[in-house]
Amino acid sequence: MKVGVIMGSKSDLPIMQEAVEVLKSFSIPYEVQIVSAHRTPEWMVEYAKTAIDRGVKVIIAGAGGAAHLPGMTASLTVLPVIGVPIKSSNSIDGWDSILSILQMPNGIPVATVALNAAKNAGLLAVQILSVQDKTIQNNLIAFRENQTKQVLQNNKNI
Amino acid sequence: MKVGVIMGSKSDLPIMQEAVEVLKSFSIPYEVQIVSAHRTPEWMVEYAKTAIDRGVKVIIAGAGGAAHLPGMTASLTVLPVIGVPIKSSNSIDGWDSILSILQMPNGIPVATVALNAAKNAGLLAVQILSVQDKTIQNNLIAFRENQTKQVLQNNKNI
Amino acid sequence: MKVGVIMGSKSDLPIMQEAVEVLKSFSIPYEVQIVSAHRTPEWMVEYAKTAIDRGVKVIIAGAGGAAHLPGMTASLTVLPVIGVPIKSSNSIDGWDSILSILQMPNGIPVATVALNAAKNAGLLAVQILSVQDKTIQNNLIAFRENQTKQVLQNNKNI
Amino acid sequence: MKVGVIMGSKSDLPIMQEAVEVLKSFSIPYEVQIVSAHRTPEWMVEYAKTAIDRGVKVIIAGAGGAAHLPGMTASLTVLPVIGVPIKSSNSIDGWDSILSILQMPNGIPVATVALNAAKNAGLLAVQILSVQDKTIQNNLIAFRENQTKQVLQNNKNI
Amino acid sequence: MKVGVIMGSKSDLPIMQEAVEVLKSFSIPYEVQIVSAHRTPEWMVEYAKTAIDRGVKVIIAGAGGAAHLPGMTASLTVLPVIGVPIKSSNSIDGWDSILSILQMPNGIPVATVALNAAKNAGLLAVQILSVQDKTIQNNLIAFRENQTKQVLQNNKNI
Amino acid sequence: MKVGVIMGSKSDLPIMQEAVEVLKSFSIPYEVQIVSAHRTPEWMVEYAKTAIDRGVKVIIAGAGGAAHLPGMTASLTVLPVIGVPIKSSNSIDGWDSILSILQMPNGIPVATVALNAAKNAGLLAVQILSVQDKTIQNNLIAFRENQTKQVLQNNKNI
Amino acid sequence: MKVGVIMGSKSDLPIMQEAVEVLKSFSIPYEVQIVSAHRTPEWMVEYAKTAIDRGVKVIIAGAGGAAHLPGMTASLTVLPVIGVPIKSSNSIDGWDSILSILQMPNGIPVATVALNAAKNAGLLAVQILSVQDKTIQNNLIAFRENQTKQVLQNNKNI
Amino acid sequence: MKVGVIMGSKSDLPIMQEAVEVLKSFSIPYEVQIVSAHRTPEWMVEYAKTAIDRGVKVIIAGAGGAAHLPGMTASLTVLPVIGVPIKSSNSIDGWDSILSILQMPNGIPVATVALNAAKNAGLLAVQILSVQDKTIQNNLIAFRENQTKQVLQNNKNI
Repeated sequence: MKVGVIMGSKSDLPIMQEAVEVLKSFSIPYEVQIVSAHRTPEWMVEYAKTAIDRGVKVIIAGAGGAAHLPGMTASLTVLPVIGVPIKSSNSIDGWDSILSILQMPNGIPVATVALNAAKNAGLLAVQILSVQDKTIQNNLIAFRENQTKQVLQNNKNI
Repeated sequence: MKVGVIMGSKSDLPIMQEAVEVLKSFSIPYEVQIVSAHRTPEWMVEYAKTAIDRGVKVIIAGAGGAAHLPGMTASLTVLPVIGVPIKSSNSIDGWDSILSILQMPNGIPVATVALNAAKNAGLLAVQILSVQDKTIQNNLIAFRENQTKQVLQNNKNI
Repeated sequence: MKVGVIMGSKSDLPIMQEAVEVLKSFSIPYEVQIVSAHRTPEWMVEYAKTAIDRGVKVIIAGAGGAAHLPGMTASLTVLPVIGVPIKSSNSIDGWDSILSILQMPNGIPVATVALNAAKNAGLLAVQILSVQDKTIQNNLIAFRENQTKQVLQNNKNI
Repeated sequence: MKVGVIMGSKSDLPIMQEAVEVLKSFSIPYEVQIVSAHRTPEWMVEYAKTAIDRGVKVIIAGAGGAAHLPGMTASLTVLPVIGVPIKSSNSIDGWDSILSILQMPNGIPVATVALNAAKNAGLLAVQILSVQDKTIQNNLIAFRENQTKQVLQNNKNI
Repeated sequence: MKVGVIMGSKSDLPIMQEAVEVLKSFSIPYEVQIVSAHRTPEWMVEYAKTAIDRGVKVIIAGAGGAAHLPGMTASLTVLPVIGVPIKSSNSIDGWDSILSILQMPNGIPVATVALNAAKNAGLLAVQILSVQDKTIQNNLIAFRENQTKQVLQNNKNI
Repeated sequence: MKVGVIMGSKSDLPIMQEAVEVLKSFSIPYEVQIVSAHRTPEWMVEYAKTAIDRGVKVIIAGAGGAAHLPGMTASLTVLPVIGVPIKSSNSIDGWDSILSILQMPNGIPVATVALNAAKNAGLLAVQILSVQDKTIQNNLIAFRENQTKQVLQNNKNI
Repeated sequence: MKVGVIMGSKSDLPIMQEAVEVLKSFSIPYEVQIVSAHRTPEWMVEYAKTAIDRGVKVIIAGAGGAAHLPGMTASLTVLPVIGVPIKSSNSIDGWDSILSILQMPNGIPVATVALNAAKNAGLLAVQILSVQDKTIQNNLIAFRENQTKQVLQNNKNI
Repeated sequence: MKVGVIMGSKSDLPIMQEAVEVLKSFSIPYEVQIVSAHRTPEWMVEYAKTAIDRGVKVIIAGAGGAAHLPGMTASLTVLPVIGVPIKSSNSIDGWDSILSILQMPNGIPVATVALNAAKNAGLLAVQILSVQDKTIQNNLIAFRENQTKQVLQNNKNI
């Protein structure tokens, strides 16, 4: 049971690392790869088509600008693909990244999260894996309770 | 194993019905409810907090305008929540629906699909359920192959 | 007679403090709380549903990104709720904050002010309280006259 | 105790009438006037400066395009002013109406509601009046309960 | 023969000064005033209504955010009013400033220039004055020729 | 003393005709021409460079999409050029028309009016001509007074 | 010497047909295919990778929404690819189509034309072919002269 | 065989230099000129109309704000014109630059690349020249292979 974390460029790594940290904290195995839709299209096809056989259960794909990686990966596998729109240096305030990941045609969905929200992509992957795994689900419940406590603590301290 | 399909208003039903049709075609059990974040907030809390116990595995939530239903539902359960931004009559070309579903803060993700893309929300729910279910996964693969065939057939006929 | 000032995150405090300063300057009692719609939904329900009984007359709620706090609070009380869209770090130039606060459906209004305009939220709360209180109204008139004088003075000095 | 309902043009009346209907249903006295910021600026000044003396407690102002009426009225009185951005024929999808009402400078707030949301403007005016009037507050609570019931009924009927 | 240069706030002066520099360079008399539509509405009315009698021929008005000064001034005089949308600190990337100046209703035009383009506002004022003044027109022609020469010179030097 | 009314395409005529009607109603001579920046660039150069000699005092130029006609005309003459952004069939909700007319670089201003606001372009041309012509100025004052009366009359009739 | 015209869906054909008509009118051979990036990704790879060997010189690719076809095709061949953003039913006013075609990363350009501008895509293909072919270049010059004449004729007839 | 690289202002040179570097690396001859549509319109006409005779095969034109240079150049020659929207200091986040280059009317296409993507403009020019030149095409294939290798190498190193 593994999560595949891919991104279009080395420069996306600092943001995508937040997804990895989440997976680590839930002890979910993962693999991290740079897969550029436009500069390594055949590697992308290979990656996506072999993912199920490698034991990947969910794919998290981050990209910016005309961000085709999440949607193209989704078109090449039936695994759920989570798209992270990245506000990269060549992006127009993130609008291009968001729209080219979110607005997929009927038939091939991408589970899109907020701009730069790799942490939430990681959490969503964990939630998807928790659907059939009570241990992960309980870990998520604990995570949420802790998160709630921190806000309530912040509230006490103001 | 059940998918919960909820929407903010009766007027969202024609669009959300497309998600239901997908679930039916994959023989996935489902429940359909109108749950308004703003007009029935306590019903929303109840719905979300009891979903796991009712056997719901994935929630699909559609809403338009200041669309708080998907994000609020997600905050009340650790089940994966798929958000469908609806271009309702009170929406500004759909931008409000998209941004208030997509831009969730760290900690509470919503798996957002394209504007009005209830069909893709249904497919994404099926893909999430397929993660641990080979039969559903095979059905998805067959669905995709059929979809591909239709495009290739359309191509032959032009 | 009290104004409730709430915000989705500790990081919103520097901006929301401007609302507090206005209330102080008009000698209006207030309470300040961190209430996260997504990380403390039950605390939000409790806060909103008990506000009237605590003597709160107006609520000022600030949030950024998919900003659900003002609208959800408004759905849980009949007190007037003033929404402050905050251009937080996870916001897309503030558009998401504005649209998810402003575009409330019929039935549940939020009195939205400009992006980051916590000062104006404070003033609007004072104006609402002044509707039945001549002293506050006179203080507002004096505030406005002073404001006018400052501009006219600036004009003399250029 | 009266609500002033003003609008920039006769053509705004069908939308602004929804505010009037709300006021009627809560038995709140009101006055309706056409006050164009640009074509009758002196009438606007007179209207706003005499509103308090006429017993007006809240002003609802609707306008479209470069919508200056709500903000200018707010600058001429300390009464709370609710702004209704109208998607008139000369508006760019409503963006101009929204931004020129919402984005008021510090010192002069306008309580902005959603695009074309005159009904919510009426409700917000009632909520403001209810701050010191238990009868109106109870009527609002009843209105909300009824609204909730209708959604729950719709839910039963699907 | 005089150009009136007004702005909503002292903080607009660094930008509006560019209009003044243009007027100086063409030896056009001018007056500079801070006139806030929202904080000094009566001073604005007085300024605009007495402009013709003071010998003002063209008004340049700069403002940001919900920028009502150019349009309101235009509604109070038949002099041509040039609007300069300013990207002030409370503006949403300038969109609010542009739309609330540009999108005036039929009957009251504002001659809008580009965001922060006070220099062009100055040049447009000069062009308007040149319509009946051959000397100014010749100075403009010389200005343009010089401008052309500089670009051609830059081209030679690359 | 003449106003030149030009437009990029025959299909712009219904909108630009509103400018012509204004000029007629003020008894201002005018000429109407189709001048396409992209399909007749040399005719555009000729038109703009000979305008002063033909007695043209102000040019009104309407265009849609990548609307280059107003700015290019302005670059070829020192006459004031009024730009009318037209929401033509190939325009993206008018945004392209507005931005490519409004956002002129320093040195070459275009006096931009609202989307499709050819009537206001006509009025602005009249206002520019009135700067040195008391008769036209008085006609404008009468036009404004009449406009004001109509709104006040509409107000009486509601 | 052939132009490949591809599109993501049968429903794009009415618009893409305009490109075909241009090619016909210049007697340029062409092939037309439906190639969906998301529903037939492998057919897309095959199409793009064999295009040079089939004698294709330029590819015109039209798509809407999250429009990945032009960019992905460009990544799979060194032939120039012209992208036509289509305002399809699932597009948000065309913004998604434009941004996901235009904003390609460094290394893989797509020659993007205006929204729905298949005619211009056809002309651009012809212009590219004319670079080394005097006959086509002369035909283009004749086409332009005729286009100019039509505008001048329209001008005479108003 | 030459590529013409032009730009509206000296300040565009740092970005446009990236196009030049690409041309150099493919050993394609080029010329670089500053040609301002608005400040040197006649030089622009001359440049564009003589380009074919000077042996220019493709023109790359960069400009920002109301960016008329690419479209006007395209209207004056049948050579393919590649437009580079530049996010210059007077641009509104690049939207004005993009829309005034991209949204050309039928009849006069501009091959638009991404915001600031002068490198891609250079590559597109090389691709256009490669249509009839196997050596350049082979160089492009080698460039792409190298680009792919770098991404795969980056992937190995993470």
